Amino acid sequence: MRAVTISEPGGPEVLEWAEVPDPVCGPGEVVVDVAATAVNRADLLQRQGFYPPPPGGSDILGLECSGLISEVGEGVTGWSVGDEVCALLSGGGYAERVAVPAGQLLPRPSGVELATAAALPEVTCTVWSNVFLLAGLRRGDSFLVHGGSSGIGTMAIQLAARAGARVFTTAGTAQKLDACRELGAEVAINYREEDFVERIREETDGAGVDVVLDNMGAKYLGRNVEVLATGGRLVSIGFQGGTKGELDLGALMRKRGSVAATSLRFRPATGPGGKAEIVAAVLHDVWPDVERGVVRPIVDRRLPMSRAAEAHSVLEASEHIGKVLLLTDS
Amino acid sequence: MRAVTISEPGGPEVLEWAEVPDPVCGPGEVVVDVAATAVNRADLLQRQGFYPPPPGGSDILGLECSGLISEVGEGVTGWSVGDEVCALLSGGGYAERVAVPAGQLLPRPSGVELATAAALPEVTCTVWSNVFLLAGLRRGDSFLVHGGSSGIGTMAIQLAARAGARVFTTAGTAQKLDACRELGAEVAINYREEDFVERIREETDGAGVDVVLDNMGAKYLGRNVEVLATGGRLVSIGFQGGTKGELDLGALMRKRGSVAATSLRFRPATGPGGKAEIVAAVLHDVWPDVERGVVRPIVDRRLPMSRAAEAHSVLEASEHIGKVLLLTDS
Repeated sequence: MRAVTISEPGGPEVLEWAEVPDPVCGPGEVVVDVAATAVNRADLLQRQGFYPPPPGGSDILGLECSGLISEVGEGVTGWSVGDEVCALLSGGGYAERVAVPAGQLLPRPSGVELATAAALPEVTCTVWSNVFLLAGLRRGDSFLVHGGSSGIGTMAIQLAARAGARVFTTAGTAQKLDACRELGAEVAINYREEDFVERIREETDGAGVDVVLDNMGAKYLGRNVEVLATGGRLVSIGFQGGTKGELDLGALMRKRGSVAATSLRFRPATGPGGKAEIVAAVLHDVWPDVERGVVRPIVDRRLPMSRAAEAHSVLEASEHIGKVLLLTDS
Repeated sequence: MRAVTISEPGGPEVLEWAEVPDPVCGPGEVVVDVAATAVNRADLLQRQGFYPPPPGGSDILGLECSGLISEVGEGVTGWSVGDEVCALLSGGGYAERVAVPAGQLLPRPSGVELATAAALPEVTCTVWSNVFLLAGLRRGDSFLVHGGSSGIGTMAIQLAARAGARVFTTAGTAQKLDACRELGAEVAINYREEDFVERIREETDGAGVDVVLDNMGAKYLGRNVEVLATGGRLVSIGFQGGTKGELDLGALMRKRGSVAATSLRFRPATGPGGKAEIVAAVLHDVWPDVERGVVRPIVDRRLPMSRAAEAHSVLEASEHIGKVLLLTDS
């Protein structure tokens, strides 16, 4: 098969669409003939050599895909060759075929094209596990997601608004802010022009927000703690502003707040807190509204796998709104 | 009445047993004729001027007491003059009388002397709210409490062991370590001689602990994150090692861990997360085992209120094991 390979750690130009061995379908796995994958920020780090795959995982990029099941491994029930699916991966999505533990499969939602379904697994699983399962966002809570126009941001806004939370977000251009508002953000803040802490305090009569979903890490740590309401929960899932920051435990105590940091990729396939548990929750709690069109995959653009370098450049420049897809057949 | 007053912020010598006005019994409150109060580390900070009482609270020291109800305010049901109680206070315990919201009262547990019952409210409410309600410690989990011979430590060890957790603790002398083991700690580590992270890794086959209850703040922040197991929760309730420390979010992410900081004193009297909610949970979940003698108040010494300065010096020197009580009638 062909896959996007990395000639050596470096810029987008190191990505090559090349011939590699086919994946092997292990017990409990299926092989998916990939229709599309989607680009995640973690892929950019991995390309540069900073984010090695978990032990035993594929060294091909790609944390999600959609496609058709072409092979069903030993012990797998409930899935058949020809099923249209999307899947959460530990790697391997930038390829024509990928082997996946069956617990990480989701059926293609009706009403969503097969290729487009590749935009869903990472964002739904990340937002559901962090904002709802971990931080427990509820109706009437207030919620802040940074980078509201990112793939994660566009899904977080929709799921939080659907849950009846007041949604605040940050983004860097007027066009991105508009997109966030259309998806359900009540207040979209241009972080280049306004301090989000001040603005949110004004909007909440000084109360702050109950949950923050953060992708900036160290750079925003102090301000994210400042913006928490009493009992507020900050969850960091990305560190675009660095990993090591000063935490003021006194400030956190005055909020009775908490700071958590998680990743989806390094969770085990099965067991407590594993990927299969999250995928099952997403199927139960998110998929019905995707099928009804209440929650939508937001796709910025579709490129062929052979243009993966261009897709990475788009993410690096933060030009996109929503997900950037890579398709095998276009 | 008489109370311990603070002539000016400073050392233990500023404490004076002096005449002050009686407290007024507001609606929803009772007045308790104090048998005893207990010294908390927060009292030492408040004496030095660093920890002012919450708005509207008494400026007399004392976060807990035991005694007899001598007056019942408007709207209070279920309590009568003469009832033997102990109580969680926002302040005012170092006195002959104190007014308390009725929701913060607990009946004296049978089998515990009235004065001794003053050793219970802060430690039971702090440990229950943080280790169980917030961090969700469960049977089979592993648990680390720093300062195992402190008032909080002696109760945390007992409640965690009772819950079926593996209990690890740190302390600074052989005598304190022995006391911790007698209370149910499986492994008691002398922090002067051993690195607790290394020792706990050895004892847990590298897994770390599910919950850490911390009183050191910044000084231990990095090592407390290091010692967390996957999905582990660190809760800081004291900052004897400072409030501002470096948090490595990358390390926290690899653990899928969280850091929380809380205080009991600044919680509202009622409502969600308020003192009354915690007191009710302690009455339901902890009190029965106190009455059975399975969970015991650990008292280091009893001094008269007039010797509050001496009691503070004992805490400052960390000479004690368990609680230091101040009695009105001895």
